[in-house]
Amino acid sequence: MHFRFTTAGESHGKALVAIIEGLPAGLEIDVEAVNRELGRRQQGYGRGGRMKIESDKAEILSGVRHGKTTGSPIALTIENLDFVHWQDVMSVKPLEQPLDNPRTLTRPRPGHADLAGGQKYQTRDLRDILERASARETAARVACGAIAKQLLGMFGLEIRSHVIKVGDVQIVPLAREWREISAIPADSRLNCADVTAEQEMIKAIDEAKAEGDTLGGIFEVVAHGVPIGLGAHTSWEDKLDARIARAIMSIHAVKAVELGTGVANAAKRGSEVHDEIVLASDGGFRRSTNNAGGLEGGITNGEEIRVRGYMKPISTLRKRLMSVDINTKEASEAAFERSDITAVPAAGVIGETMLAVVLANEMREKFGGDSMDEMLRNYEGFVSAISKY
Amino acid sequence: MHFRFTTAGESHGKALVAIIEGLPAGLEIDVEAVNRELGRRQQGYGRGGRMKIESDKAEILSGVRHGKTTGSPIALTIENLDFVHWQDVMSVKPLEQPLDNPRTLTRPRPGHADLAGGQKYQTRDLRDILERASARETAARVACGAIAKQLLGMFGLEIRSHVIKVGDVQIVPLAREWREISAIPADSRLNCADVTAEQEMIKAIDEAKAEGDTLGGIFEVVAHGVPIGLGAHTSWEDKLDARIARAIMSIHAVKAVELGTGVANAAKRGSEVHDEIVLASDGGFRRSTNNAGGLEGGITNGEEIRVRGYMKPISTLRKRLMSVDINTKEASEAAFERSDITAVPAAGVIGETMLAVVLANEMREKFGGDSMDEMLRNYEGFVSAISKY
Amino acid sequence: MHFRFTTAGESHGKALVAIIEGLPAGLEIDVEAVNRELGRRQQGYGRGGRMKIESDKAEILSGVRHGKTTGSPIALTIENLDFVHWQDVMSVKPLEQPLDNPRTLTRPRPGHADLAGGQKYQTRDLRDILERASARETAARVACGAIAKQLLGMFGLEIRSHVIKVGDVQIVPLAREWREISAIPADSRLNCADVTAEQEMIKAIDEAKAEGDTLGGIFEVVAHGVPIGLGAHTSWEDKLDARIARAIMSIHAVKAVELGTGVANAAKRGSEVHDEIVLASDGGFRRSTNNAGGLEGGITNGEEIRVRGYMKPISTLRKRLMSVDINTKEASEAAFERSDITAVPAAGVIGETMLAVVLANEMREKFGGDSMDEMLRNYEGFVSAISKY
Amino acid sequence: MHFRFTTAGESHGKALVAIIEGLPAGLEIDVEAVNRELGRRQQGYGRGGRMKIESDKAEILSGVRHGKTTGSPIALTIENLDFVHWQDVMSVKPLEQPLDNPRTLTRPRPGHADLAGGQKYQTRDLRDILERASARETAARVACGAIAKQLLGMFGLEIRSHVIKVGDVQIVPLAREWREISAIPADSRLNCADVTAEQEMIKAIDEAKAEGDTLGGIFEVVAHGVPIGLGAHTSWEDKLDARIARAIMSIHAVKAVELGTGVANAAKRGSEVHDEIVLASDGGFRRSTNNAGGLEGGITNGEEIRVRGYMKPISTLRKRLMSVDINTKEASEAAFERSDITAVPAAGVIGETMLAVVLANEMREKFGGDSMDEMLRNYEGFVSAISKY
Repeated sequence: MHFRFTTAGESHGKALVAIIEGLPAGLEIDVEAVNRELGRRQQGYGRGGRMKIESDKAEILSGVRHGKTTGSPIALTIENLDFVHWQDVMSVKPLEQPLDNPRTLTRPRPGHADLAGGQKYQTRDLRDILERASARETAARVACGAIAKQLLGMFGLEIRSHVIKVGDVQIVPLAREWREISAIPADSRLNCADVTAEQEMIKAIDEAKAEGDTLGGIFEVVAHGVPIGLGAHTSWEDKLDARIARAIMSIHAVKAVELGTGVANAAKRGSEVHDEIVLASDGGFRRSTNNAGGLEGGITNGEEIRVRGYMKPISTLRKRLMSVDINTKEASEAAFERSDITAVPAAGVIGETMLAVVLANEMREKFGGDSMDEMLRNYEGFVSAISKY
Repeated sequence: MHFRFTTAGESHGKALVAIIEGLPAGLEIDVEAVNRELGRRQQGYGRGGRMKIESDKAEILSGVRHGKTTGSPIALTIENLDFVHWQDVMSVKPLEQPLDNPRTLTRPRPGHADLAGGQKYQTRDLRDILERASARETAARVACGAIAKQLLGMFGLEIRSHVIKVGDVQIVPLAREWREISAIPADSRLNCADVTAEQEMIKAIDEAKAEGDTLGGIFEVVAHGVPIGLGAHTSWEDKLDARIARAIMSIHAVKAVELGTGVANAAKRGSEVHDEIVLASDGGFRRSTNNAGGLEGGITNGEEIRVRGYMKPISTLRKRLMSVDINTKEASEAAFERSDITAVPAAGVIGETMLAVVLANEMREKFGGDSMDEMLRNYEGFVSAISKY
Repeated sequence: MHFRFTTAGESHGKALVAIIEGLPAGLEIDVEAVNRELGRRQQGYGRGGRMKIESDKAEILSGVRHGKTTGSPIALTIENLDFVHWQDVMSVKPLEQPLDNPRTLTRPRPGHADLAGGQKYQTRDLRDILERASARETAARVACGAIAKQLLGMFGLEIRSHVIKVGDVQIVPLAREWREISAIPADSRLNCADVTAEQEMIKAIDEAKAEGDTLGGIFEVVAHGVPIGLGAHTSWEDKLDARIARAIMSIHAVKAVELGTGVANAAKRGSEVHDEIVLASDGGFRRSTNNAGGLEGGITNGEEIRVRGYMKPISTLRKRLMSVDINTKEASEAAFERSDITAVPAAGVIGETMLAVVLANEMREKFGGDSMDEMLRNYEGFVSAISKY
Repeated sequence: MHFRFTTAGESHGKALVAIIEGLPAGLEIDVEAVNRELGRRQQGYGRGGRMKIESDKAEILSGVRHGKTTGSPIALTIENLDFVHWQDVMSVKPLEQPLDNPRTLTRPRPGHADLAGGQKYQTRDLRDILERASARETAARVACGAIAKQLLGMFGLEIRSHVIKVGDVQIVPLAREWREISAIPADSRLNCADVTAEQEMIKAIDEAKAEGDTLGGIFEVVAHGVPIGLGAHTSWEDKLDARIARAIMSIHAVKAVELGTGVANAAKRGSEVHDEIVLASDGGFRRSTNNAGGLEGGITNGEEIRVRGYMKPISTLRKRLMSVDINTKEASEAAFERSDITAVPAAGVIGETMLAVVLANEMREKFGGDSMDEMLRNYEGFVSAISKY
């Protein structure tokens, strides 16, 4: 049994659409919680004007009846409130006459899919590319992730992210416990556990903004309460670390992914890195440290999954980068679309989503079942067997 | 059309086996070149005794006739020469009587799949896990990757890796051109473009060895001659950066993956990071730098793909780590299997393999075709269209 | 490259939803043609009252701009006009108080998913099952199939179905040419090429209706203008005949699938069955007959694909079948939902859809490409090579 | 969790190879039982000389240790004993000089993949196609199916086939109970439950042979002890009836697939066809008949799965069919390779295999688990819940 989601929709089209397959029947769905996650994706100091226009709400069209899943696919839509201003530019129908302001994009933006996409799909209006390449698509992902989280929550598995670096400002110390991360208030400006660093990050954002520039950073996503034995070592396609890397790297602007303390580990010795095995007071096996980020040999070991995404600075800058007009072939400044100064906190929320959907899939693969009762029974049977191992 | 490979086989079993699906007919297969790649995987200063026992040779059993592919699946085997000493321990058949030296593993090694695997599969002989979790499996991958490279070579696409860090010794400067990387001699001890750093790396390996410790490091894989337009921005599952991250993270001991200069980029400003677009003398679009590592929005932009794998130190140490015996539940030193001090050069070769198989798949998806003639014709048509874009 | 579609939605929910992935950019989309196909699905003598309520219209929400595909996923919705009467029964939200008329289904209908679905998903209101199991879902499929047909049409590939049997009335002769099938008028009552048989079929339907009974029958789907070389013999999963069988068998109430004259062939001798190979006047290879239905060894041979679906009689009957109430465990007559007497013509239209989506996928796999220009160029290159074979 | 197998190998190559993924750990594997199934595939009155040459034995190379699965992929090979006579013709290596007897095939055989395959893969030696298109490939499938059966057997699920028609001779009556089918002796000449019909079938085979002709027929595969709730109604890709149809249609020479009495049902009325629901003495729900073949809405209902494959006559005939030489373009008799007169009993055994692998996959999807203990516990939990439904 697989958990799978598919999204569609453009940044300025009528709506984003998603279909989720593979949920068991009988899971209670809290739509308000979905909308809260959508709200979290829109927050963060350093976001642009678009975030003020859209206040995303998901509407579920199928797969849920009287508040519970039925086992059928869940379809949901998120309206693009901005569409009202883009009806002609983004019209599905053929144009009857040329538009006054067609908003055609011909000067591709470095760091975006614009040019490579235009060449691949052989289009001369790069808007055809950017509308789908935009990170607006992640709103649909986050709605799906919110539902994945509700499934995981039934098994005591929780997921939270926090920002550990914006520009060159990093939290001190780097290592933060779940308790601390999960206590970051919902209205935190940068979803950061280190209030002092957060102040400096805000200053860095203000400075970058003043200079028409943008910033990247690093977020960490933590999954807490993960069962032992998700993933597999048996084939490269089954390795959970690899699947997580894919999911996190698929987030817009993420260019590196790290499990546990994987970047620093590369410079250390084996005796400093590997997490020794100890017996906990409850008789279960534990690791004395968690440098591995909860995964050994592609399998969860019961420690927290810790994965970090390294985000490049936002690619749309007021301070223009040089480009070439695809029609005139003349060197020109790249086009500008309204954008953010930084979006690391939002990327962290999307990171939660991607980890949630990957883990939801692993839970479905391992525990099977078509109803919540069945899946929970299978899960509990395994947990009980593990406790006797 | 997909390029896909499946492997099977244990570290001390009779043989490794792989099946490759999705090659076009009419591709010339050079078995000696496959064996040379297998040899490269076995090299590198700091390897253990096993590398001296096995001198891997692939035998192709199907899918190739008179030196050319037929379009049918290619099956190949690589014999484990060491099997002769493990026939009883690794016997497929039930044992008729208990073995004198069953080599049962009950003290799981930190950093390995041993314990999590034992719990997942409910086995009390952790050899059932380690035999498949061992990096020996990558020999089968490398044979498949060698064939993927032969396909890619028909399109002028070449792949090479080099070692940029072992322990805390890093090459200076970090950025190296294709010319330099591809010129590293085949008998280089660490596949490193910086001879001075290589000397220091060797010293570090010797020191680690003397102390019963192990080292990790960083390798970079470069794909040169990559067509524009592989991958897609349209869905998270189609993003090529994400697929590459998965493939590299699937390599044993890799715990972080970086595209281009993705780790450093996270601390920089947008105006420093994004690769400006310029018109080359041949009229084509180029980037003035390649911080993105050849991928924007999940699509290749025609620059070299550059991906780095961060490898943790080898998890099997002479200097024992603490563990717990799964039967007695007593704290004990972890088991020891013959192992390496470091294997970053080999991991680089496996990185080449994984990038090759991912790109072979992308080429098959985009250019389709069932014969080399057809695939080449489709490729050339696209390249010609791009040249007029 | 794959063509894939995913549907969601319940029979009496707010809307059906579908997402189509894998279309090249630059394909003109005719929404009216999509709606005409939806209309064809609703026609046919012997349909029930629901068909009069719904007059299906597809709304495209994404993936099409100014009348052409962009390469991004196409999302579409089809509103359920009947939803207005089912808002409480089918509410996504939890009920605040019990409904007066909850329309709970507890007496499962033989021949439906009701009981097996209720047991599988552990629900005690079988409406949770039937709402998704209903053939209403095929409206979403037909919209996707209409778009697949538009893609195929660019390559001169057309698909049409006709009814060859309703109850025990079969057309005479059975074999009908494309010319005849494609000439059946759009307002034909049973989409039947034999007007005399059609009269008898109508009579049979009237009789069944009078007795509260239902009828099945056989439809044939024909693909005309199919390129040589779709599908593959190399693996069971690649065989196109097998993929077609799956697609046709997935249609509600279809219980047998036949390629060419596959049922009759089983009783004949080889010398009577196999289609001899001849040279056509244009120098190409042809078959003198087409008993194979256009597929040999899982590969298209350039002849028409001919596939037949055998439909069981509609499972919802006024003349009640015996069942058991899942709560009281008492023998009772099965529940009754408004239904049709027969729906073979509609099943034929859905058969066209399923063949279209399978062939669209094969075309995408073989010819690749990201734009219509590229895909057409690849196609023409292959056709030209074949002409010289 | 998926059960999946991949095969490779040519008819006259060195060996067939298969890799099976997705078995739980701890399943006892009986290699002799695998070889017995391979023997069953080679039996049947009307087989040609090849069957006397090959006496297939599977060698397991991985994934099984001391008689039990470990959860790792199982690789197995089946040697082609005939290869010794084909070493040059089928050599993987390039030829150093032209062969005296290259056995090049240029006159494609009607009913085979020869011509369409040659055109698709652009090869002028059709042996490149036929070697893989040959039904010899099914030996590898049968070995995989034998292992799937061993998994299913742990859940009390058994699969058997029988021949119901050869040429125009059909068993009377058609409907046969499991008891009767499973009692057909292993050395039965046509695996037929009707001894009288079997005599006539043998006569028909003898007559066809005398005239250089071939016969087809119909086999039925029955799965007994199938749990309720495999498959799903929620999406066309999840429907188990559709997956079974694909699997059976993928068998060489099968051109139609029927579930239950699906062909006859199409001509009947609903009140005659649908299987009424009754309460069994054990309190469970049963069907009073099984016209549906155990599947309603794509879900198993607990009755036996019954599926029939309609096999066309063998396409290689002594009595030659007309063809065209692909080089000279002259009309010529098709090539002849050693072949059978009929192979319906063998196709039935392969049908068992295909049903077994599909059901093994469904069981893995629904019940998940990584060890036999876990999978059995999950299964039993569900069976117990069903018993209280």
